[in-house]
Amino acid sequence: MVDLTIVIPIAGLAAFATAGYLARYVLKQDAGSEKMKEIADAIREGARAFMKRQYTTITLIAAVLAIVFAAALGAGNLWLGAKTAAAFALGAAFSAISGYIGMHISIRANQRCAAAAQTSYNAALKTALRGGAVSGLAIVSMSLLGVSLLYYTYGWGMAATKDAQTEVVLSMVGFGFGASLVALFAQLGGGIYTKAADVGADLVGKVEKGIPEDDPRNPAVIADLVGDNVGDCAGRGADLFESTAAENIGAMILGAALFPYFGLSGILFPLVARAFGLIASIVGVFVVKTKEEEAPMSALNRGYAVTTVLAAIFFGAAAFLMLNPDPNPGGGLPAASTWTWAYYFGCGLVGIITALLFIYITQYYTESRFRPVKSIAEAAETGPGTNVIAGFSVGLEATALPAVAIMGAILISFFLGQASGVKDGGLYGTAIATMGMLATCAYILAMDTFGPIADNAAGIVEMAGISGSVRKQMDKLDAAGNTTKALTKGYAVGSAALAAFLLFSAYLEAAKIVSVDMAKPEVFVGGIAGVTLVFLFSAFAIRAVGRAAWAIIKDVRAQFKEKPGIMAGTEKPDYGRCVDIVTKSALKQMVVPGVLAVLTPVAVGFFFKYVVITPGLGAGEPLGATLMIGTIAGVILALVLNTGGGAWDNAKKYIESLPAGKGTDQHKAAVVGDTVGDPFKDTAGPSLHILVKLLSTITLVLAPLLV
Amino acid sequence: MVDLTIVIPIAGLAAFATAGYLARYVLKQDAGSEKMKEIADAIREGARAFMKRQYTTITLIAAVLAIVFAAALGAGNLWLGAKTAAAFALGAAFSAISGYIGMHISIRANQRCAAAAQTSYNAALKTALRGGAVSGLAIVSMSLLGVSLLYYTYGWGMAATKDAQTEVVLSMVGFGFGASLVALFAQLGGGIYTKAADVGADLVGKVEKGIPEDDPRNPAVIADLVGDNVGDCAGRGADLFESTAAENIGAMILGAALFPYFGLSGILFPLVARAFGLIASIVGVFVVKTKEEEAPMSALNRGYAVTTVLAAIFFGAAAFLMLNPDPNPGGGLPAASTWTWAYYFGCGLVGIITALLFIYITQYYTESRFRPVKSIAEAAETGPGTNVIAGFSVGLEATALPAVAIMGAILISFFLGQASGVKDGGLYGTAIATMGMLATCAYILAMDTFGPIADNAAGIVEMAGISGSVRKQMDKLDAAGNTTKALTKGYAVGSAALAAFLLFSAYLEAAKIVSVDMAKPEVFVGGIAGVTLVFLFSAFAIRAVGRAAWAIIKDVRAQFKEKPGIMAGTEKPDYGRCVDIVTKSALKQMVVPGVLAVLTPVAVGFFFKYVVITPGLGAGEPLGATLMIGTIAGVILALVLNTGGGAWDNAKKYIESLPAGKGTDQHKAAVVGDTVGDPFKDTAGPSLHILVKLLSTITLVLAPLLV
Repeated sequence: MVDLTIVIPIAGLAAFATAGYLARYVLKQDAGSEKMKEIADAIREGARAFMKRQYTTITLIAAVLAIVFAAALGAGNLWLGAKTAAAFALGAAFSAISGYIGMHISIRANQRCAAAAQTSYNAALKTALRGGAVSGLAIVSMSLLGVSLLYYTYGWGMAATKDAQTEVVLSMVGFGFGASLVALFAQLGGGIYTKAADVGADLVGKVEKGIPEDDPRNPAVIADLVGDNVGDCAGRGADLFESTAAENIGAMILGAALFPYFGLSGILFPLVARAFGLIASIVGVFVVKTKEEEAPMSALNRGYAVTTVLAAIFFGAAAFLMLNPDPNPGGGLPAASTWTWAYYFGCGLVGIITALLFIYITQYYTESRFRPVKSIAEAAETGPGTNVIAGFSVGLEATALPAVAIMGAILISFFLGQASGVKDGGLYGTAIATMGMLATCAYILAMDTFGPIADNAAGIVEMAGISGSVRKQMDKLDAAGNTTKALTKGYAVGSAALAAFLLFSAYLEAAKIVSVDMAKPEVFVGGIAGVTLVFLFSAFAIRAVGRAAWAIIKDVRAQFKEKPGIMAGTEKPDYGRCVDIVTKSALKQMVVPGVLAVLTPVAVGFFFKYVVITPGLGAGEPLGATLMIGTIAGVILALVLNTGGGAWDNAKKYIESLPAGKGTDQHKAAVVGDTVGDPFKDTAGPSLHILVKLLSTITLVLAPLLV
Repeated sequence: MVDLTIVIPIAGLAAFATAGYLARYVLKQDAGSEKMKEIADAIREGARAFMKRQYTTITLIAAVLAIVFAAALGAGNLWLGAKTAAAFALGAAFSAISGYIGMHISIRANQRCAAAAQTSYNAALKTALRGGAVSGLAIVSMSLLGVSLLYYTYGWGMAATKDAQTEVVLSMVGFGFGASLVALFAQLGGGIYTKAADVGADLVGKVEKGIPEDDPRNPAVIADLVGDNVGDCAGRGADLFESTAAENIGAMILGAALFPYFGLSGILFPLVARAFGLIASIVGVFVVKTKEEEAPMSALNRGYAVTTVLAAIFFGAAAFLMLNPDPNPGGGLPAASTWTWAYYFGCGLVGIITALLFIYITQYYTESRFRPVKSIAEAAETGPGTNVIAGFSVGLEATALPAVAIMGAILISFFLGQASGVKDGGLYGTAIATMGMLATCAYILAMDTFGPIADNAAGIVEMAGISGSVRKQMDKLDAAGNTTKALTKGYAVGSAALAAFLLFSAYLEAAKIVSVDMAKPEVFVGGIAGVTLVFLFSAFAIRAVGRAAWAIIKDVRAQFKEKPGIMAGTEKPDYGRCVDIVTKSALKQMVVPGVLAVLTPVAVGFFFKYVVITPGLGAGEPLGATLMIGTIAGVILALVLNTGGGAWDNAKKYIESLPAGKGTDQHKAAVVGDTVGDPFKDTAGPSLHILVKLLSTITLVLAPLLV
């Protein structure tokens, strides 16, 4: 087999270099008028203040957890405890840096995108996408380099045997846990912030005072714009960092199980595959160019198509070169075939196709061209109640096709893996499908971050009092951003679902169990606990938005009272006070759901290890059920919340695009649906993706304690 | 051991006699003024027309299914096919009759309750409760007698051995499937009808025309009143008929597994326990009396307390007399202890306490005295959007405590059963806990049916133009009815969850599998299918209400246009046309979700038996996962929908009770939440209870085909 590992540092560094080049490109652009700069400075200041306080809180929580877990693991195996804690710290730090990079560049790209829109539509699109690409490339590259660094450090001097390598990869799981812990709090805190500010600004501004969105007279307007950055950019960045890291480590664990066939290649293939995907994404980003009159989505889609095709070709090449099994694996194992690589390439294609399917399905359910959104808009004719009912039922319905796609992907990739001739190669097949799905991740992330940058730019244009064709072009970009945000959410939840299955297998490996038998009452109860966690977590996340929004509403009302000149434009509202209030409130509200997510698996494990002790069972199986059933429920509920929320939003936009449009009762009804959807799609839904991955990584870390 | 089986016919016949006596009592009451009679006649006519058409549709679907299943089963074992088909037909017929009885008496009790309210508050309460008790007693008695009849018929001449008796009880499972099939369609059709009429009547009447609820000028008002009867009475009656029947059969299957210890007593104990519960409920119904100034809920609670205490005492006596195991079970089995009965009595108490817990938890989440409903009302201050968000988050939160109660009940009763000394006696322990929970079922059902009767009576009083103190007293009764309806839903979903676990065990027994291992990809995929079914089914159920409501809205608008004199009171609206339209529409809309529920388990079984064939696995385990994970998801989602819906409803009522109250923006916002909650709590939620039980019974019937 050919050693392709050199691709890993090359791709990682190339991605960083490209990110640096793109960042320079973005920063070189015109920063706009004084007025724009002033607004952007306020956004930047607010975002920085939030991130600083948020990271302080997260660091505290992470430090406490690191010590507790290290102590618990270290009590049995000091070396394992230390290595897990170090991996945890590294994962947490890298995740935090990923979020920071996303935020750092987006709060600069926004004003430049706004400035560029004044001269050229193409330039504005390019600025926003390249700003997004900085995040995408940097984050995926950090994930790749972080995992690789850890593998080579922990594997230093370790023998190239199955047992030694398994030990190495199992000692890395703390990295994934650290990453998902930070991601969870980042997404929760940011998601609560952004929606509380949004809902708060809308309710007092639009509804009570009747002023348009992003009107500078609204004291909450800067908080709202800050929210796009800390919620969408930082949150999704940490989310996909975590996805790729956890998927890599899980796939490496499964690769180690096939050591007799593939040797080190099976362990390193996930890293190489990711490296190739990164290169494909770099090419994709540079392809995107648009003509002045072209719809922005078709340009973005072109880039995505290039990335996908390249990723598939690279994937095939890597499989051909690396996944040729030893014809004499020994140990009584049957010999695999020379076509093994092709079967696994097939698994990769399954993943790539699954990514496409998720994107198409999400489009169908959230774009106004199709039946679902139209039916919501129609239901708005009879008032807000029927509008909400219709949207909720669309959200519920939108679970079925993605579920079928995931079921198909798992079964097909598993059977291809089994058919590859490698004994027990099925699970590795599902792992490779996940790699395929995540191959285009950096490009997807670039598209995603494009969304909030365009959104922010549109806000800056509005606040700067610019109107006419520039406004219209910004609105077009903004709409495209909404679409990409919805699509990425679909992609993120799909990849979380597929990755979950391979992480389960890694958990079974780590906990030394072979089954999770729901027919046992303890295991069944563990399953109920998983589902309940998902629902309770969502309840807290959604409620948190309500509470934080309430805090900002009170302040905005107070400001209008204290400074009667605001509405007339003679007094300036105190934007900073609103930012400050929502920051405090969001951070306070993120703690309960976050801690609940961490404590539930710990409690289930503890309960069945020390309280209800069933001979011959242990805590591994019940906790496995919490993980597995919780994951299914989490993915399905996330689909409901994301899709429902996106569909309401676009139903409202669709009505606005009608001739009668704004101001009608139908529109007012649709605004209610949009408000309901906000915490669904931007707080609870995305946090659920991370919750299911946190469940995977925390149970992996806990596994040695349960044996 | 003492033969207590004589209690079964005694209790069954006593319950029927009591039901007859109470029915006579109700029918003897004054039927009210001519005006009242006229309204009641219209309701009766509408309800009858709906039930007739509904039952025609259901009979068709059931006949097709009976033939298909009988043919499939008969191909392997002709005798089994015939017996299953006969049991199916019997179960379906009894379930239909149960629903009919519920409806039949409630459409007569309503006007008599209304008439009684004019003279005495106590008489009105008594009439409504006794009307409800007719349903409760008749339905539970039919379930008991039906199952007993089947057991003695199929068991005629069968040997008193473990194998022979197991064959007998397994051949009875068609009864449960027939019952749940009819219950599903009855609840779906009735639920869609009642909420479509309600939403439709409100949207045009209250919102567009500004006339009060139940105003005779609203063409949809009779359809709305019909809905209470066909949705709440007939639906819930079929639901609890099915619960008790399926629970009995499942417990008998588990009892047969312990034949070496208990002989026939273990199989018959579930019937005897149910018989005693029926007697306790009869006493409870006669205890309820209220003083003129007393709150109706405290009188109803007194009756419930008496029923509960009596049921517990009877349960202990029956366990003491029937569950004394053979000290020499033979076959190498360990000897049980003389305290075995006490352990199982403990299981029964666990069930009785679980019932109480569910009722208290439901009260906490749906009554305006407590934090959750108050928080929804508060959120209505900032508009309908935040009102909906708050209610949804309450619904999500309301899953946690019931889940903990169920987890506790399963674990404690399982361990008590294991500790009883009977080998593998744990599952029988969970079965006995379920019996305990369902012991008070007849009384609960009486309280439940009390709700729609009082609701209808209030409507009749309003339509008859009566005001003053009679109206106020009716409103008090109506409010109590809303509370009992919410509590019963909590109880119904809790008992469904507990019963599910014992039905799983029966399924494993029938499908001859010992585990449901989620670590296998096929099984995991089966689990995803179960969760997806639950969500998609809910989507269809909720959407159906929207579609049927739309049909009625169009007709009401048309009537106001065609007959301009309606609003002035000079022309009479065509009530029958509305009734007709909503009947057709509801029946059309119930087919898709109903058929989906039946076909999904069949498709999963077929797929893993004939399409994706894994050697050594078969279809039993994947289908088991569909059943188990689908059940968990179904129960949790039902809790969200039921509780959220009830909480919105009561938040609206709470705001109405405030001094500013009706007509404020806060109230309008709360009305939106109430509208959203309607299809949640009265269509999708209650249908989900039945869906999870249908899953249990259909998989039991399919089990022999999977072996």
